[in-house]
Amino acid sequence: MTMIFQLALDRFSIEEALQMARNCQEEADWIEIGTSLIKEFGMESVLAFREAFPQKFLLADTKTIDNAIYEAKIAYEAGADAITVMGCGPAVTIDLVAEEARKRGKTYMIDLLNTKPAEQQKLRETFPDAVFCLHTSKDMQEHGNHEANASAISWQGRRLAIAGGIQAETIGSLTRTLHPEIYIIGGAITKADNPLVAAQRLRQCAVSAEE
Amino acid sequence: MTMIFQLALDRFSIEEALQMARNCQEEADWIEIGTSLIKEFGMESVLAFREAFPQKFLLADTKTIDNAIYEAKIAYEAGADAITVMGCGPAVTIDLVAEEARKRGKTYMIDLLNTKPAEQQKLRETFPDAVFCLHTSKDMQEHGNHEANASAISWQGRRLAIAGGIQAETIGSLTRTLHPEIYIIGGAITKADNPLVAAQRLRQCAVSAEE
Repeated sequence: MTMIFQLALDRFSIEEALQMARNCQEEADWIEIGTSLIKEFGMESVLAFREAFPQKFLLADTKTIDNAIYEAKIAYEAGADAITVMGCGPAVTIDLVAEEARKRGKTYMIDLLNTKPAEQQKLRETFPDAVFCLHTSKDMQEHGNHEANASAISWQGRRLAIAGGIQAETIGSLTRTLHPEIYIIGGAITKADNPLVAAQRLRQCAVSAEE
Repeated sequence: MTMIFQLALDRFSIEEALQMARNCQEEADWIEIGTSLIKEFGMESVLAFREAFPQKFLLADTKTIDNAIYEAKIAYEAGADAITVMGCGPAVTIDLVAEEARKRGKTYMIDLLNTKPAEQQKLRETFPDAVFCLHTSKDMQEHGNHEANASAISWQGRRLAIAGGIQAETIGSLTRTLHPEIYIIGGAITKADNPLVAAQRLRQCAVSAEE
């Protein structure tokens, strides 16, 4: 399984985010246009990344929870390869995102924020082609009880991403416990003195833990 | 209790949305900048409405589910009087939106989409100063099992809004059952041949039902 590093970009201007992505593009297999960029600047943010990185896999973190077809359309047509839909939202919305992604041959990620194990199990069975994201949110990291990413159910046979506060000190144990395909990393790279070096170090830690 | 009509604007360009709001401003006590406008155009949409309607109460339907302080900041500072936060999301995010709204003397609405009665009861007790929104989402209306808005718990003593597919034919029974303070109406006004007349008729139906 190839290890995918998704560089999550949030709380930046579009220009700052582009610059950060340019600086660490060799370690960013996927680039995430964060929810804050989308809500602050709209689809202009996705278009700017598509233009700057014609070949990169781009995930637009739309956090869709209603109006699925419309949101999928604007994000995919702006250049996103993947969008996100909230697992804690209505089932019909997840269904519609999945259908829209399949129609377009695109990827969709189900964000498991605030879902219970039984709900996760059901999502796992219903959407075999989704990417699932075990997510410790920003607010939980910064203001809540910071729990390490963990899962009460098995994700074997599914594409799994982990997100939220991943650091060089914790990535190894996350790798050994969860064996994710996709590592979604923001601050540990973007707030480092040297983001590219930080990303390289994180990847080394994950690779060593996989061996 | 004053009856508040919130005109919900979605799936429009900013210019179309402004035009629609101008056409029915006398019946629109609150104007909602819909999630689709925010995700498509960013805070530019909120700024444009603040500029065009300096005196109107504006709700930015941010559907916040993480990054609460940041999203509250950009939306309130762009001119929103109210934002929304998802009741099905993490408790810490709702707490942070509530705190941020109180600090700024602004309004916050908790969207009850996909919450269970026990969760609603807890939110009701925890956030006495919130506006609560019983919400049949677009996807549920257009693609799911369309259930009329109903509530298993009492909202007496709380500010209550209802949203989702409200029509002239259904508004009276919603009024009699739920006695909401705020009616969030989109399509029944914006898709009418004469939006202003449609809004007037909806209000008459609600007022008659209250008497």
